[in-house]
Amino acid sequence: MPDTPTPDGTGLPEAAEAYDPTARTVPSRSKQRASYDHTTVHSILDTAYLCHLGFVRDGAPVVLPTLFARVGQRLYVHGSTGSRPLRETGAADPGLAVCLTVTHVDGLVLARSAFHHSMNYRSVVVHGIARTVTDPEERRTALDAIVDQVVPGRSKDSRPADAKELAATAVIRLDLDEVSAKIRTGGPNDDPADLSLPHWAGVVPLTPGYAAPVPSDDLDPAIQVPDYLTAL
Amino acid sequence: MPDTPTPDGTGLPEAAEAYDPTARTVPSRSKQRASYDHTTVHSILDTAYLCHLGFVRDGAPVVLPTLFARVGQRLYVHGSTGSRPLRETGAADPGLAVCLTVTHVDGLVLARSAFHHSMNYRSVVVHGIARTVTDPEERRTALDAIVDQVVPGRSKDSRPADAKELAATAVIRLDLDEVSAKIRTGGPNDDPADLSLPHWAGVVPLTPGYAAPVPSDDLDPAIQVPDYLTAL
Repeated sequence: MPDTPTPDGTGLPEAAEAYDPTARTVPSRSKQRASYDHTTVHSILDTAYLCHLGFVRDGAPVVLPTLFARVGQRLYVHGSTGSRPLRETGAADPGLAVCLTVTHVDGLVLARSAFHHSMNYRSVVVHGIARTVTDPEERRTALDAIVDQVVPGRSKDSRPADAKELAATAVIRLDLDEVSAKIRTGGPNDDPADLSLPHWAGVVPLTPGYAAPVPSDDLDPAIQVPDYLTAL
Repeated sequence: MPDTPTPDGTGLPEAAEAYDPTARTVPSRSKQRASYDHTTVHSILDTAYLCHLGFVRDGAPVVLPTLFARVGQRLYVHGSTGSRPLRETGAADPGLAVCLTVTHVDGLVLARSAFHHSMNYRSVVVHGIARTVTDPEERRTALDAIVDQVVPGRSKDSRPADAKELAATAVIRLDLDEVSAKIRTGGPNDDPADLSLPHWAGVVPLTPGYAAPVPSDDLDPAIQVPDYLTAL
């Protein structure tokens, strides 16, 4: 996609809905790899469940891995009400400035030159203000979505959170507004003078996957592996 | 490991070298999952090549995926001299406050209750001040290490950076000083009252791997796939 951008640089028809680029979502380099259209951004988010959430504490950055889910134009993250940064967020202004980043690595790109080594990847970076969700229905929707983002269909096959668990769980929301995707595909971009060098060049694709589910020792043997797991 | 911590909480003999915990490397929750010993931290770093690097720009957090390498007690990140944050780092004080996070996801943990769903993971979080590396020999060492962190042995089988490429490449260093690992292993921790529920419970292990290397279209067919790639 980045190799043959359309005039608007998104690689999609110009009529497609897109996020407006801002000073911090236009990359300083490799601008042709950036995309802002909803389809591209959502597809990267929807095939992930782990994000790296950045925030500022005492003037210094903090980056923590955490689960997330997308529901429409909102992302949700949850955690213990006792954990940072969730207890720093607040439901009202000013909220907590965050940067939420999702990255898929698709392949290792080996060029003849060390300099042109690279990765094929698809990433999304979201900037914005995170706020605590207080509406009970939105909290339920978000918590189900976070479970289903990891294993689609799982939320319906588990015991929903009870009042005590809900009280111990913070849910924060980040609107998809200031968002960009960045994608690299294809083989190495060696300099012409290097093409005759004797080094192997190409791509090593990554193959993420799942092994067979391992039941808990205390699982009733009559309970079969559900279809939504074999579908993974 | 977190399930049976030794008295010092690291899961290793007390004589093992360890990083000193600080206010920001002691987690606010699940303290038993934290480790500070060098062996654990280094093993997590050395089996990764992608990190998420956080820094602060105009008061807001930024989190970007990037390659890294460990050499002893230092981490290195590289990039274009024209890219952010590398041009903001500087070789002298004050440097750039960063948080560098590495995460391996090992399995999806499905509990009977939605609340106890989790992931098995190994993560390392490094806080510190990043500084530009100017010493030519250290820069070379770092650049080779970044290539070899992705594919061990590759740096010796590629054309080293020439003067022009070196001039275009910034290398930044982050000392391993304020560092912690966090590890979750094992099955779901369901409440006793939930054990008789009819929902499947257990772990779905993740199986990261590599597909067969795909040579560039313009690769001389006489060049075989090198041993260090088949070893992946």
